[in-house]
Amino acid sequence: MKHFTSVHDVDDLTKLVDLAFAAKANPNHNKNMGQHKTLILLFFNPSLRTRLSTEVAGHRLGMSVITMNAGQGWKLEFEDEVIMNSDKAEHIKEAAAVISQYADLIGVRTFPSLTDREADYQDRILHKLMTYASVPVISLESAIRHPLQSLTDLMTIRHFQKTERPKVVLSWAPHPKALPQAVANSFVEWMQAAAVDLVVTHPPGYELAPEFIGATPVEYDQKKAFAEADFIYTKSWSSYADYGKVLTKGSEWMVTPEKMALTQNAYFMHCLPVRRNVVVADQVIDSSASLVIEQANNRQWAAQAVIQSLLNDLL
Amino acid sequence: MKHFTSVHDVDDLTKLVDLAFAAKANPNHNKNMGQHKTLILLFFNPSLRTRLSTEVAGHRLGMSVITMNAGQGWKLEFEDEVIMNSDKAEHIKEAAAVISQYADLIGVRTFPSLTDREADYQDRILHKLMTYASVPVISLESAIRHPLQSLTDLMTIRHFQKTERPKVVLSWAPHPKALPQAVANSFVEWMQAAAVDLVVTHPPGYELAPEFIGATPVEYDQKKAFAEADFIYTKSWSSYADYGKVLTKGSEWMVTPEKMALTQNAYFMHCLPVRRNVVVADQVIDSSASLVIEQANNRQWAAQAVIQSLLNDLL
Amino acid sequence: MKHFTSVHDVDDLTKLVDLAFAAKANPNHNKNMGQHKTLILLFFNPSLRTRLSTEVAGHRLGMSVITMNAGQGWKLEFEDEVIMNSDKAEHIKEAAAVISQYADLIGVRTFPSLTDREADYQDRILHKLMTYASVPVISLESAIRHPLQSLTDLMTIRHFQKTERPKVVLSWAPHPKALPQAVANSFVEWMQAAAVDLVVTHPPGYELAPEFIGATPVEYDQKKAFAEADFIYTKSWSSYADYGKVLTKGSEWMVTPEKMALTQNAYFMHCLPVRRNVVVADQVIDSSASLVIEQANNRQWAAQAVIQSLLNDLL
Repeated sequence: MKHFTSVHDVDDLTKLVDLAFAAKANPNHNKNMGQHKTLILLFFNPSLRTRLSTEVAGHRLGMSVITMNAGQGWKLEFEDEVIMNSDKAEHIKEAAAVISQYADLIGVRTFPSLTDREADYQDRILHKLMTYASVPVISLESAIRHPLQSLTDLMTIRHFQKTERPKVVLSWAPHPKALPQAVANSFVEWMQAAAVDLVVTHPPGYELAPEFIGATPVEYDQKKAFAEADFIYTKSWSSYADYGKVLTKGSEWMVTPEKMALTQNAYFMHCLPVRRNVVVADQVIDSSASLVIEQANNRQWAAQAVIQSLLNDLL
Repeated sequence: MKHFTSVHDVDDLTKLVDLAFAAKANPNHNKNMGQHKTLILLFFNPSLRTRLSTEVAGHRLGMSVITMNAGQGWKLEFEDEVIMNSDKAEHIKEAAAVISQYADLIGVRTFPSLTDREADYQDRILHKLMTYASVPVISLESAIRHPLQSLTDLMTIRHFQKTERPKVVLSWAPHPKALPQAVANSFVEWMQAAAVDLVVTHPPGYELAPEFIGATPVEYDQKKAFAEADFIYTKSWSSYADYGKVLTKGSEWMVTPEKMALTQNAYFMHCLPVRRNVVVADQVIDSSASLVIEQANNRQWAAQAVIQSLLNDLL
Repeated sequence: MKHFTSVHDVDDLTKLVDLAFAAKANPNHNKNMGQHKTLILLFFNPSLRTRLSTEVAGHRLGMSVITMNAGQGWKLEFEDEVIMNSDKAEHIKEAAAVISQYADLIGVRTFPSLTDREADYQDRILHKLMTYASVPVISLESAIRHPLQSLTDLMTIRHFQKTERPKVVLSWAPHPKALPQAVANSFVEWMQAAAVDLVVTHPPGYELAPEFIGATPVEYDQKKAFAEADFIYTKSWSSYADYGKVLTKGSEWMVTPEKMALTQNAYFMHCLPVRRNVVVADQVIDSSASLVIEQANNRQWAAQAVIQSLLNDLL
């Protein structure tokens, strides 16, 4: 693997998931693999889970890990051939080339504008960085994908699935803020590559981008979608068609015990952070069917497997 | 020791102080004790001494240490059964459970509202975190206690005391801002548990909470309190009765050379940071009787002893 | 070497440059030299290159590295005998003494006011810190010097020079903001100590401080200065005479391909971050004559050589 930015970067999905489970079973088995190597994490957007889990994964492999919160005061120019007399003090061209010399791997979290759909869906910041970086890049969530989360989710489903081809439902959720489509896009992409039956359910207007949804069935009736489900994965996202907008009000799409009762004793999943009693009722997230804490646990093993794969291909 | 949040968590106070002195005498003696273990420090309030001394202590034990400044942008919900549609993106229930999976020990600094006395004195944030965390928690100062500082202070007094049962005076100090009662509460609690004669002196209105002051004598005349003292420990705090308020103006209670002359050649102590010529006159803090730099030094050994004790009981 | 704050602290310049090249050739050769030692980096001003390169250098020597961004919320008092009832909660006297007890080396970045020339040129913050610190101090850029950058620049020139005594031109550049004179002052100081022919060129009004420029020739005609040059080092700075002011507008002094054509196939240098098409044209910085990325690379080896020298003299 040369970079880790989407499922398309993964040579062998089963092998990568197995590697993550091996790390979980034996966390310090490869403790010298990253010795004398540096992982630099750049957060253009703040993070809790991703930062901590990736730092821990790097440390477990013996790496030195340095985190930069690039939000405050460090404004980069991403456009070419511009006269840089605004508030942006450095071009991504220099920044990426320079950081590449201090790091063996670079992790980067970028974010969508939610106003300029074209720029967001070109994942412009991530790709500019990759163009000018000379070392492997790990996406810690980009404008349109969150592949470390999706690898985690696949691990979690693999562990808890009771049938060979479980029914997995991605269910849109209400939220007070307009959120990116990244987690949803990425989840769909990874589930399509895995041996599951995926159904997506959301109110009209929240259709995912055609290049992500592909041939995956969409069911506008949430209750119908939940029937026979083995896993309910819920997540809020803003509209792609009416880009970046929240189109609906009310709690109608919240995941409740009544809706969970329609499933085949389905597990409940969410990537966190989650708004309780907005996205999901307390009774669901606090039930034994809830896998949210286990998902967060798996973030560290997913990160470790990805770093190991990239280090391996460095040698 | 299962957690370290107050003197009541300590099984054997003398043993813990001895352990701190042993760390000071031989800093790297236990350099592999924390190998492959992670200490995550959460600061809901910023910190210099506590952050640096605790990170250094963790590193000396071979731990990997990760610091999160939770102040900026990371707003947690602490109330149960609430509909989370405000600005708080995550519940402490998930946050604590998730961080517990990445850490072997969690250190946390919380702070009082200074407006809601009941919530502050329940130490609600710390206790919510401990309820949902699954690993030992170290208080890096809470709404009402600062036990690492108190352990440090006890070490310092132990080293410099000239008599078996020294007279220790906690003297309230003026300050331009309303400050927590945490350091004062904690100091009283630890001195009560140690073999010293404690006297507290402050203007009327600054009485500490009954559960902290207990049977410790209070002397409203600062000069009388200083007579025969071996240690003068000064600290500003806001009112408990008129909760969170500053009731007095003027520099009458500042520690001066004249007041120090009333003591039995007492040492001067303060936890830092200190406002010079407000809390204490330059001539006192700059004199050879001042132990403030030594106290700050001992912070690292106190932290190391606490981490060692917790790691020991993990095994 | 006892501290590293200017070229005057360096015993043997050639030896220090050789040490930096040795680190570059064999990065992990001294990987245990800093074991059980702590490097604390204090940034009163934010930083990308300096922070990352110095952290990486410390890690490569086996040190534990802790970075504090002192900008936010941590306000220090630098004046003596003051009544501290303003917004400054701690005096540099305590802060420096305390941090010295947690660190084996302290790195510090300070900055000029650009309004109070006398205070800036006394480098007051740096010197106060050094007065009260009890361990070696590394300047990570001060109000008036940037010695780690200058060591880097000397390394870079040494590697690329084609003649025994190359002609090096320091050329002032336009910039939308008023910038410190630190990089320029320091570059002049180091080039004066090295075997190069230095010429400084700038518009009238941008004369450097007399104690820095010394006997170095100043040429007000940029094109004349470029003639026969082997290295063009460009940097913006604000006026010393009309202190902290930007006196000129327009892009007349930008480095362009036309100007580079006047040189003896000179290399182009800049310390970064750089404003493209303001300080230098894309065609120059993107050409094979540009050394800016190599300069940034050398920052890590310069830092490593400095830390090694200081650690060596600790023993």
